[in-house]
Amino acid sequence: MQTRKILLEEDEMPRKWYNILADIKMNPPVGLDGKPINPEDLAPVFPMNLIEQEVSTERWIDIPEPVLDVLHIWRPAPLVRAISLEKALDTPAKIYFKNESLSPPGSHKANTAIPQAYYNKEFGIKRITTETGAGQWGSALSFACSQFGLECKVFMVKISFEQKPYRKSMMAAWGGNCIPSPSMETKAGREALEKNPDAPGSLGIAISEAIEAAVTDETGKTRYALGSVLNHVMLHQTIIGLEAKKQFEKIGEYPDVIIGCAGGGSNFAGLALPFVLDKLNGKKIDIYPVEPLGCPTLTKAPFVYDYGDTAAYTPLLPMHSLGHDFMPPPFHAGGLRYHGMAPIVSQLVAEGIFEPKAVSQLAAYDAGVMAARSEGIIPAPETNHALAAVIDEAKKAKEEGREKVIVFTWSGHGLLDLTAYDKYFANQLKSFALSEEEMLKSEKVFENYPKPQLLKSH
Amino acid sequence: MQTRKILLEEDEMPRKWYNILADIKMNPPVGLDGKPINPEDLAPVFPMNLIEQEVSTERWIDIPEPVLDVLHIWRPAPLVRAISLEKALDTPAKIYFKNESLSPPGSHKANTAIPQAYYNKEFGIKRITTETGAGQWGSALSFACSQFGLECKVFMVKISFEQKPYRKSMMAAWGGNCIPSPSMETKAGREALEKNPDAPGSLGIAISEAIEAAVTDETGKTRYALGSVLNHVMLHQTIIGLEAKKQFEKIGEYPDVIIGCAGGGSNFAGLALPFVLDKLNGKKIDIYPVEPLGCPTLTKAPFVYDYGDTAAYTPLLPMHSLGHDFMPPPFHAGGLRYHGMAPIVSQLVAEGIFEPKAVSQLAAYDAGVMAARSEGIIPAPETNHALAAVIDEAKKAKEEGREKVIVFTWSGHGLLDLTAYDKYFANQLKSFALSEEEMLKSEKVFENYPKPQLLKSH
Repeated sequence: MQTRKILLEEDEMPRKWYNILADIKMNPPVGLDGKPINPEDLAPVFPMNLIEQEVSTERWIDIPEPVLDVLHIWRPAPLVRAISLEKALDTPAKIYFKNESLSPPGSHKANTAIPQAYYNKEFGIKRITTETGAGQWGSALSFACSQFGLECKVFMVKISFEQKPYRKSMMAAWGGNCIPSPSMETKAGREALEKNPDAPGSLGIAISEAIEAAVTDETGKTRYALGSVLNHVMLHQTIIGLEAKKQFEKIGEYPDVIIGCAGGGSNFAGLALPFVLDKLNGKKIDIYPVEPLGCPTLTKAPFVYDYGDTAAYTPLLPMHSLGHDFMPPPFHAGGLRYHGMAPIVSQLVAEGIFEPKAVSQLAAYDAGVMAARSEGIIPAPETNHALAAVIDEAKKAKEEGREKVIVFTWSGHGLLDLTAYDKYFANQLKSFALSEEEMLKSEKVFENYPKPQLLKSH
Repeated sequence: MQTRKILLEEDEMPRKWYNILADIKMNPPVGLDGKPINPEDLAPVFPMNLIEQEVSTERWIDIPEPVLDVLHIWRPAPLVRAISLEKALDTPAKIYFKNESLSPPGSHKANTAIPQAYYNKEFGIKRITTETGAGQWGSALSFACSQFGLECKVFMVKISFEQKPYRKSMMAAWGGNCIPSPSMETKAGREALEKNPDAPGSLGIAISEAIEAAVTDETGKTRYALGSVLNHVMLHQTIIGLEAKKQFEKIGEYPDVIIGCAGGGSNFAGLALPFVLDKLNGKKIDIYPVEPLGCPTLTKAPFVYDYGDTAAYTPLLPMHSLGHDFMPPPFHAGGLRYHGMAPIVSQLVAEGIFEPKAVSQLAAYDAGVMAARSEGIIPAPETNHALAAVIDEAKKAKEEGREKVIVFTWSGHGLLDLTAYDKYFANQLKSFALSEEEMLKSEKVFENYPKPQLLKSH
C-alpha cells in the first residue's frame, strides 16, 4: 500500500515567508504620469505595516506567532500523492498536490486572510472591507476577521451573490456582512447602477466599492484588503511552496513540473515562488500557470501598466492585462474572472520563467469530475483548470514513457459551487475563447499609459 | 504556542476494528413471534459477508487493505485540542475533538460507506440502494461507490431534497443518483403518495423504499446499505475511537468525559466504544450520547423491540424507540431525526454505561456559532448538539475548578446546511420538546411486540 499523504507536524511548519522581491527585478507601481507612487499614498487604503511588507526586499520575513497559531488550525497542509488519479490515467508520472481545500473556508485564500487580519488588528484597525467574486476570498476574510475580533464587510459580485446564497450564509456564520455589488452604499456602486439598474456586477466594480468604503470611513479605523495580485499576498501564500519543498525533501523527490490555476495569481505563486530561485540558478523545472481560455490574461494579453480595478482607484500596476474594463464571458470559475494578473507572476512570465497555459471550460470540468471520482475531493472550479493541465502532462509522460514528478495546488473544494457541476452534467456548459476583435478592443485601453520596462532578473 | 493537532501517520492507523459484541451481552433481532431471526433471512437485503460481520463476536476484525487504502484519503483524522474554544470559555477543561469533517463528503459517514461499498463489491454486487435524510449518508455512499466502481441510488427525504439541492449535486459529482422520497418507484413510496400527494417524506419511508428497491431487483445484483444503527456500522466507526486512544497515548492524556451527538448512534459509538471496556473494568469515565429534545429517543423513550423503518420491512430490533411511525418536529439536524437508536448504544444506555443528554435546538446552534467563531470550522447541525453538551461540561469544570479532559466528535461540517444557520441568525429557529401526550402515543406502538430482556454485561 502506497502512502498517500506526506504530513508535517505543526513545529515543522516554515516560520518565515519567502519574499521573491529580494531575488527578481520589478517595475514599480506608478501614476498616469509614469512616476513611481509613494508608499504613503496607499496609507488610506492599507495599514502601514502591510504597505511596508508590500515594498520590502528582505528575502525572509518572520511569520508572527499569532498568525502561525491560527494557521495551525489546518496547516501544515498535506502533500498528497494522487495515486488514484495516476491509476485512472495509467501514467508513469508521479502526481502530487498540496491540499489547500482543508482550511475552514475551503481554499488557499485563508493563508493570506489570516496575516492580513492580524496586521490590520496590530495597526489598530477595527473593520476591513473587501470584494469577492465566487466567494472564496470573502469567506476566508470573514473567517480571519472572526479569529482576530474585526468587523468584515464584503462586496460580492451581484450575479454570484444571487447564484450562491450559501456564500453569504457562510460569511454570516463567522460574523461577516456580505452585500451584493453594485450597491447603493458607494459612489462607484451608484454610478454603475445608474448606467444599468440590472448590472450583474464585476470584480472590478466590487473592488472599487470596497476601496471607496474603506477610504471614506470617517473614523479612520477601516482599511481595505485584497485577496490576490499584490506582493504581500504572494508573500503570504509562499507557505504552500515552502511546505511542499520540505515535504519533497522528506521523500527524496523534487518536482519536474509545477502547476497552479491563476486568476489573480496567488494560488499559483504560493506554490511556485519558492522553486523559482532554483530555476534561476539553472535547475530544470517547467512551471505552468493555468488560466481559462475565456480570460487569457497571461497567454494572450500584453504586459502593460493598468489599473487593478474598474474605477481606476488603484495605482497603475505592471502586469499582463486584458484592460481594466474587460468583462469576461460567463464561464464558471469566479476566481479566474480577473482582467489582470499579479505583477510578480506577470514579470516572471514576461521573462520566460513561467510558461502559461490556457484551457477550455469543458476540459476543466472533464478533469474536475475525473479527479472527484478518483481522489475523492470535489474540486473548486478554479482547481479544475489546474487539473486539466496536470492530466495533459500526465498523458504526455505516458506517451514519452517518463516517470515525471508533477505537483499542483488543489486550491479549494467546490462544495459551494455545485450548480456549475449540475450544468456540466446537464450539458449546459460551453467553452469560451476570445476573438481577435475583443483582444484588440482591450488593448486600446493602454494607448496613453506609461509602459513597463522589460527587465531580466538573471 | 500550544500544539493544536495530534496527528498520526498512515502507517500508525489501526488495522483492525473493535467489535464490542465480544464484550457485551445483546438481545438478538427477532420477528413478531419473538423468535431470533436467521442471518440467512437478511440475504436479499445485505451481502452475506456484511451479515457475517453483523453477527460476529470476534473482538478484533481486520480492516481489508483496499479499505485502509481509501480511508487514507483523509485518515487518520487529527485529534484537535480546541484551544480557541477553551479560551472563549475561559475554562480549565482541556477540550479535544476528532475532526471527522475532513472526509471528502464532509462527515464521519464515510468511515462505514467505504467498507460497505468494498464488501458489496467483493460479494459481486453491482448496485447499492440507500436512503438519506440531511444528505450526509447519501453523499458518503456515493463517494464510496465511486471509489469501488458501483452504482449508487439514494432515496432522499423529499423535504430535505427540496431544501438542499446541493446534496443531489454532490452525489451526482461522484456518479450517485439521488431522487426524492416518497417516490413512484416503489410500492412503499406509492402508498405514501396515495395517502398524501404532498408528503414531505421521512427517514422511515425512505428506508422502506431503499430496501424494497434492493430486494425487488431481479438481477440479484443490488443490495441495500444502512448508514447507522446496525452492529457492522458501529464496528466500522470504531476507527474514530481507536485512533483517538492512540493519539491520547502519544500526549499522555486520557479522557474524563466522552461526548458525541447521537441520531442512529454511529458517530457517538465510533468514538465511545473503544473506551467502554476500560469503563466496564472500573475506569471512571463519563460517556454522554447527546440527542435533540425534539427527538429524545435515549432520554425519554423506552427500551423495546421495534422496527427500524416505517413500513416494518426490517426485523424487530432491541432499542430505545419513539415508535417506528414517530414523526419528529421540524428541527434542523436531519441526522438526528430518527425514531430509534443503535441496539448497541441502546443496550449500553439500558445498563447505565452511557448517560444520555438532550439539548434544545437553540442551545445547539448557540454552541455551533461559538465553535465556528473560535475553532473556525462551521459545524454540521448534528455536531452542534454535541458542542452544546461539551460547553456545558466545560462550564461545569470551571465552576468546579477542575482540569477535566473532554473529547468529542466533530462529526461533520455544515457547509451544505447553511440555510439552518440563516434561520438561526434571523431568529427563526425555535426549540422543540415532546409533550407527555406525544410520548404516550408513541408507546402504544409496542403493546403487542415481544419485549427485550434486561441484560447486564458485567
